[in-house]
This record gives sequence, C-alpha cells and structure tokens, in this order.
Amino acid sequence: MVHISRRAFRVLALTLGAFLSVAPLTGAAAQSPRYVFLFIGDGMSYPQFQAAADYLGAIREAGEPDDKILKGSEYLSFMKFPVAGSAATYDSTSFCPDSASTATSISTGHKTYSGVINMDEGLTREYESIAETLHKRKGWKIGIITSVNLNHATPAAFYAHQPSRNNYYEIGLEMLDSGFEYFAGGALLKPEGPKGDLANIYELAPGKGYRVIRTQNEAEKAAAADGKLILVDEHPADSDSMAYENDRPGENWALADYVRKGIEVLDNDKGFFMMVEGGKIDWACHANDAASSIHDTLALADAVDEALKFAAAHPDETLILVTGDHETGGLTIGFAGTDYDTFMTNLANQKISYARYDSDYVAAYKKNGTSFDDVLKDVEKLFGLKTRGEKDDPLVLSDWELNRLRAAYDKTMSGNKVSGQEEYLLYGSYEPLSVTITHLLNNKSGINFASYAHTGLPVAVFAKGAGQEEFKGFYDNTAIYDKIAGLTGVK
Amino acid sequence: MVHISRRAFRVLALTLGAFLSVAPLTGAAAQSPRYVFLFIGDGMSYPQFQAAADYLGAIREAGEPDDKILKGSEYLSFMKFPVAGSAATYDSTSFCPDSASTATSISTGHKTYSGVINMDEGLTREYESIAETLHKRKGWKIGIITSVNLNHATPAAFYAHQPSRNNYYEIGLEMLDSGFEYFAGGALLKPEGPKGDLANIYELAPGKGYRVIRTQNEAEKAAAADGKLILVDEHPADSDSMAYENDRPGENWALADYVRKGIEVLDNDKGFFMMVEGGKIDWACHANDAASSIHDTLALADAVDEALKFAAAHPDETLILVTGDHETGGLTIGFAGTDYDTFMTNLANQKISYARYDSDYVAAYKKNGTSFDDVLKDVEKLFGLKTRGEKDDPLVLSDWELNRLRAAYDKTMSGNKVSGQEEYLLYGSYEPLSVTITHLLNNKSGINFASYAHTGLPVAVFAKGAGQEEFKGFYDNTAIYDKIAGLTGVK
Repeated sequence: MVHISRRAFRVLALTLGAFLSVAPLTGAAAQSPRYVFLFIGDGMSYPQFQAAADYLGAIREAGEPDDKILKGSEYLSFMKFPVAGSAATYDSTSFCPDSASTATSISTGHKTYSGVINMDEGLTREYESIAETLHKRKGWKIGIITSVNLNHATPAAFYAHQPSRNNYYEIGLEMLDSGFEYFAGGALLKPEGPKGDLANIYELAPGKGYRVIRTQNEAEKAAAADGKLILVDEHPADSDSMAYENDRPGENWALADYVRKGIEVLDNDKGFFMMVEGGKIDWACHANDAASSIHDTLALADAVDEALKFAAAHPDETLILVTGDHETGGLTIGFAGTDYDTFMTNLANQKISYARYDSDYVAAYKKNGTSFDDVLKDVEKLFGLKTRGEKDDPLVLSDWELNRLRAAYDKTMSGNKVSGQEEYLLYGSYEPLSVTITHLLNNKSGINFASYAHTGLPVAVFAKGAGQEEFKGFYDNTAIYDKIAGLTGVK
Repeated sequence: MVHISRRAFRVLALTLGAFLSVAPLTGAAAQSPRYVFLFIGDGMSYPQFQAAADYLGAIREAGEPDDKILKGSEYLSFMKFPVAGSAATYDSTSFCPDSASTATSISTGHKTYSGVINMDEGLTREYESIAETLHKRKGWKIGIITSVNLNHATPAAFYAHQPSRNNYYEIGLEMLDSGFEYFAGGALLKPEGPKGDLANIYELAPGKGYRVIRTQNEAEKAAAADGKLILVDEHPADSDSMAYENDRPGENWALADYVRKGIEVLDNDKGFFMMVEGGKIDWACHANDAASSIHDTLALADAVDEALKFAAAHPDETLILVTGDHETGGLTIGFAGTDYDTFMTNLANQKISYARYDSDYVAAYKKNGTSFDDVLKDVEKLFGLKTRGEKDDPLVLSDWELNRLRAAYDKTMSGNKVSGQEEYLLYGSYEPLSVTITHLLNNKSGINFASYAHTGLPVAVFAKGAGQEEFKGFYDNTAIYDKIAGLTGVK
C-alpha cells in the first residue's frame, strides 16, 4: 500500500480531474456538445471579416487623431474564439464553388457539383444532412435562420435534396416535410412555383403543422408552445430577403433577433442544432459593395453574440462554429491606387446598399431622365463621393474617376445591355452606375474586388465550446460535417 | 490518510503523467522543442499557397481528361500540418504592413512602424530577437536562410536593429556581429555601403570568424567543423537574390538545399533555431507574376520537406512553423472575366519569370527596337499567349487583349515613365510590357491581382511538432514570438 495524505491525494485527484475536464482532447474522447450553433457567413472568408475588423479599427483610430501609432483592427467576437482552423472549398465542378455544393459539403460531408443540393454527382443518390440526422436520431430540435430566402441554397442544404438549387418550389415543399421546429428569415422564393400556379407553400404550411408568422409583433410573442414556426421577416428587401444591415431601420429585426427568438423556442433538454446564415455578405460581395459586406458581417457577429450569451449559461454543452461557405468577389484589403495605405473611414459615407440605391434611386433616374448633375448630388449625399471639395479631401473624384462615373451613368441611362469583355469587367451584370459608384468608393478606401463571382480562397472555421479542438488545422469543408457528426455521436 | 493500493496509485500517477506529456497543454506546461524551424513565405497568405495547391490539382486533373469530377487541390506538405492558426499582420503604420515591421513582430513580439527593424516607434529602443535570445541564453545554434538578400528586411529582423530597412550596410555589419552559425541565400545588398566606399562586408567577415563560401562545390563540402558560415548563392539573379524557382536550372541549388546543408551544420545537442524565408513569393506578387509566385511557393514547400525529414528523426523535440509575414499583391483565385471557372493549367505555359524576361528580352527589345510582331513570337514561346490558334484555344488573345498588349509594348519601347492614375493601375512601377503579359496570362487562368503592394489579409500559421497546439486560434503576429519564446522557456 502507498500511504499518502488525504490532502496530497486530493491534489493528485483534482489535478487529474482538471486535466480530464479542461485538456483539449481529440477523437472519441472529445467533449460532446448538446447545443450546436453553426453560423455560415455566405461568401465570408478572411478578407470579409478582416475588412470588418479593420473598418472598426479605422473608425476608432479616427477618434484619436493625435495618436500616430495605428492600434490595428477591432476584432469581431468570433475572431477571438479559442480555435480557428481553415477549410478548403472547391467542389466537384470548380475551385470557385457555389453555395449549394459547399453547403452540401458542410451539411453532409460530400462533395458534389455546383448547384446541387444534397445529391451526388450522378443526381440519383440523396444525402442526409446533419440537421436531419440530429433531428431523427437524437430528437434534437432544429432551427434554420437566414438573412436571405428560406429556400435559398445554403438553408436548403440542411433540409432539402434537389438536383438544382433553382427548384425553389420543391425545396419549399421539403422545408414543410422536414418537421424542423424553427425557420426564420427572408421570405420564400417562388412560393407558388415557377409559373405561380401551384399551391402556395405558406398555405400548405399549417397542414404540415407549421404556424407562419409575418409580423415582428407576433414574432416577439412566439413561443415553443406554439409548435413549429416559420418566421418571415416583416420588411422584405431585394428579392424578398431581409434588408441589408446598412439599410435596416433600428426598430426592424436584425439577424440577431431571429437567433435570440430561435434560442428561446428551441431550448430543451435533449439538445438543438441551429444553422444561421449571413446570406447577404455574399450578395454584397457579388455586387462589389464593400460597405454593405462589412455591415452584414457585423450583423452576423451580433447574431453570434446571442449564441455566446446562451453558451455562457451552458458552457460545457454548447459548441459555436462560425465559418463561411466560400469567398465571394475576391475582396482585397489593399488596392493598386492606394499602395500600402487604406482609408476605410471613407466607407462610413455610404448610407445605403447598392440594392436600395438601385430600387429607390436608379429606377427613378431612368424613368425621369435625371441629369448627371442631379445624380451627382445623390452620389455625394449617399456615398460621399464629390466633384469638388477641400484640397486633400479623399472623396473628391479625379477627372479620370469622374469620366468613369459619367460613362457608367450613360450606360445605365441608355438601358443597353453590357456587351464585350471590357464592359463586363467594369460592370458585370450589375447596374453600371451603381457598381461604378461602389468601385470608386471601395478603391478610394483602399479596397478592391476581383470578380462578380465566387473565388477559391479557403474559409476560416472558428470554434468555441464543447469539442472546439476538433476544428484546428487545415482541412476540407467536408470535414466540418465529419467533426460535427463525430462530436454528436451520429457519424 | 488515504490508503490506496500501490497499483491504483501507479495507475493514477501514470494517467496523470500521460496527460502531462501528451495532452496539448497551454503555457509553461506545453512541450518544449529543442529544434525550431520558422519558415516565412514573404507575401505568402492563403491565396498564395492555395493557388499553388490548386495549380498542382489542375495539372493532375488535366492528366485525367475523361473524369469530369474535379478532385480538387493537391495540398502542399505544410497545409497538412496538424495545427493551423491565423495571424493578423497590421503594423503601427498601416493595415497593409511591410516586411520589416512584420518580421519585427514575429521575431520580437512588438509592433513598430513600417520599414523599421527591431526598434520601437520612437526609434530609440532596440528589441532583441528570438534568435538572439536563444543564441545567448540557451547556446542554441542559429541559421538564417533566405532566397533574397541576406541583409533584406525579413532575415535582418532576426539579427539587426535599425531605424530603416534600407541601412543595408549597417545591417550587414550587424550580421557579422551576430555570431550566428549559418547564413545562406542571396548575396548582400550594398556590401560596400551606399556609395561603395566602405570596407567590404565579405572581406570583414573572416575577422569576425566567418567563412564566406560562394560556390556550390564548396558549399556541398561545408561542415560544422568549418566554423561559422556565410553561403552566398553562386548564381545571382535579379537584385543579387537567388533565381526564381521557374528560372532555376535543376543543377543549381534551391532553397531546400540551403536548408539541408543548414540542418547538417547546425545539428547539435543543445538545439538550434532556423529561419527560412521564401522571399521571392513576395517579389513575384509585387510584380503580379502568378506563375512565379506559385513556383516559389512550391520551392518553399520543398524546403519545409527537409525540415520534415529532420523532424521524423527527432519527433518529440522538433517544432516546424510555416507562416507568412503579410499578403502581397491581393492575389485572388478567381477573376471577373472567368466567373466561376479557373484555368490554372494555362500558367504552365509561362517558362520564365517576369524579371528574367525583363533582363534577357525586354532590355534587348529596347536596344534593338524589336518590332511588335517579333515580340509576339517571344510572348507565345515564353508565356503561351498567341494571336491566332484553334477555335476555343484559351490562350488566343482577344482584340481587346491584344490592344492592351500593344499599348504596353508602345509604352515600354517609348521609355517614358508611367504617368497618371490609369497608367499606374495598369503597370505600377513595372515594365509595362512584362506586367501586361502576366496580367493577361493570369486573367486567362482565372487569377487576378489587386495591388502592386502588400494587403491586409491575415496569414496562416501552420505548426507541427513539439508545442504545436500553441498555434491554434486567431491572434496577432506578435503572438508568434510570444508562443515560441514561451515554448523555449526564454520569455
């Protein structure tokens, strides 16, 4: 026998116990979460969140004009998570994948072709999503939240199985069949089918046990006792999505509000899985609208903060993941015209998203034949760009820039389609005037975009909580599924 | 007293011991490496190594034309390291920092202004580098290897302390005073001072105990017994750096050879620290030469493989880190003109770096007044771009592209300086003809650059070996110093 003092034994046992509980373990021995949050910034890779953090840092810096030493970025909450890995995003079609295939990889662990939702490359085999498995096998409640449409590619990949992401109606039907407890965000696309002649999805919902809520007032009162819920944002914006964060009046619900409500109605002893998509980061980056991308990234961070509040009350049982599905736009923090400088505070002059500018201003310009001079007044008011000002005013357009803007105005007012290689590079499929305004403001801020599509940059995977250690390293996006499934014991 | 069996006590003690030795711990209790490799890809962030991995994947894919399913990237060895964190790179001047300040952060844990080597923002206080500390306090041998000049900013930050990175001569003198055991790579800049009237650094070297070796033959024979060594590459290329990897004849030493030799001469029982810079990834990206960036990234990966061989023989005592100091060029895998596609195999047509094209071809064009038609023949031979070819040949220039090339040719042949905002965006400070050729080839490959300078993208930090767990997460680049210093017990 070994004789040790009770105190020494306690120290030994407690030390071992402490290691067993806090040491980051791997594989089967890792902690098993009961509450899993998966935040997906659509189109959000390193440039998007770093730009948002740099923007906050630049704004703070501008408040201390006498201090010449740059203090740097103001990190978003999720950038401070204890684990940060990376995931490669290519799909079976391209190194620049799409949201359907990448969400399929994250939710099922399989690569597939661009545009395909949870089916194999032969378009015959259906893959079950992690949300479906956790719902069926573990009895967890499931929440699917998005700032874009509830039947858009990313949310669809958690409940639907379709050869094309454009099968919006079929995806909507699968949503009703999922039995998931909570859907919230932008409205459904094509709820009556591509021709508008099919049974309305919202009207079918009650028959499938869903209560559809369309006002904030009702949403605020919604509770788990109401049964399965579909919360549709009361203030639809472009393509019936939620408004861009920088267009959103403060009293309208943000993404964070839908997460807060989701936690309230999903919280239960068995567990829940919540997927939250910041979908308009992608849309903003497609349109090369840096300011809107930054504000929607901040809105995603606010939504993550709701999960952090929940995790604080359930620290050993909650896992929060924040990732992206791919990068959009080839956003760079840096531009040839500004060399080693950035001027991100310029972006604060943008008061409106490109989309709202299109709908609320450009449409009227076209209708009324508004003069270039009058357009310039709006451009100054809404984006800060001006034709004259103090010497060294960073927002005064050079002759060359003004000529670019005038050419874009002419093109927009002509109503002619973009044609030829050079025009496509300048405008993509966007309104020439609007995209040129954001290009000019981006570039004056030291920011640039390379593309109107997705790029092949890896995405970050931030992890905090039970099982976080699994997410370190550089891996394929399919491994995100593997790791979640492994940690929740359903692999 | 607690009475437990000797066996139970052993189990308890062994279990605790096992956790103490294998569990990834943090802080002082983590594993302490005796051999530390720090690889720095200058200008290498996510886009650079992902592009290299995608390029290899695309080349492999092209060998299997009947298989329609993209297999994806072929990861470089370091991308498979067990831990991959991220580091933010801003310095005290800008979100787009320079190599002097970022190397200072990595080697000393302090931020400073762009251009400053291991001194504070007041330019009065000197910081000691991790290499100096390990050399002095632990008696470790130190190796500093770079593909660019031995007194360039990144290597300098491991042994010098200067208010300006341009103090090449003073940096050279500090190199000799360092007492470090092994320097290898490109030649010194300004070894006789800015005016060429000071004592030659190479001639001062023997008096400081250094043997200078300038041929591969001698380098191959060099051994620890020869004392302190300075190996200068026998085949100097642009700015007396080592040649770009895609210009290097197979028989000339690569970066990996200097690492192999460095391991041989530094290996000792006390320990060693080796910093290896892939410096021309940065130079290639400044010049927007994607193919050269990719090949130099592959050369860095080859150099890492030498460290992996050493680590295989010393698995518990070796730590290998692979990171970048900042991103250069705003490289994107994706381009507006190619949307969701990339065509990276096109880059295999580039047979020469932009720098060698400048020196070996463009200089002669200017001297001889070479016609545009004759230049086009070289462009096809060296870069694959052509004016006519089979239908759907991806390398045939459109009229618009050909006009861009002709305008660049005219500008180069005129000898006039680049002037104005538009021309600067097109050519930066590079030879208009050369940079337009790489721009066209990049874009046809689905690749783009946003800048001729550095950008604010975070960098990856890959870690493998003793203490690897310390490097997970998203942190400031100064934390790289903190972590190495903590692990080696010199903090």
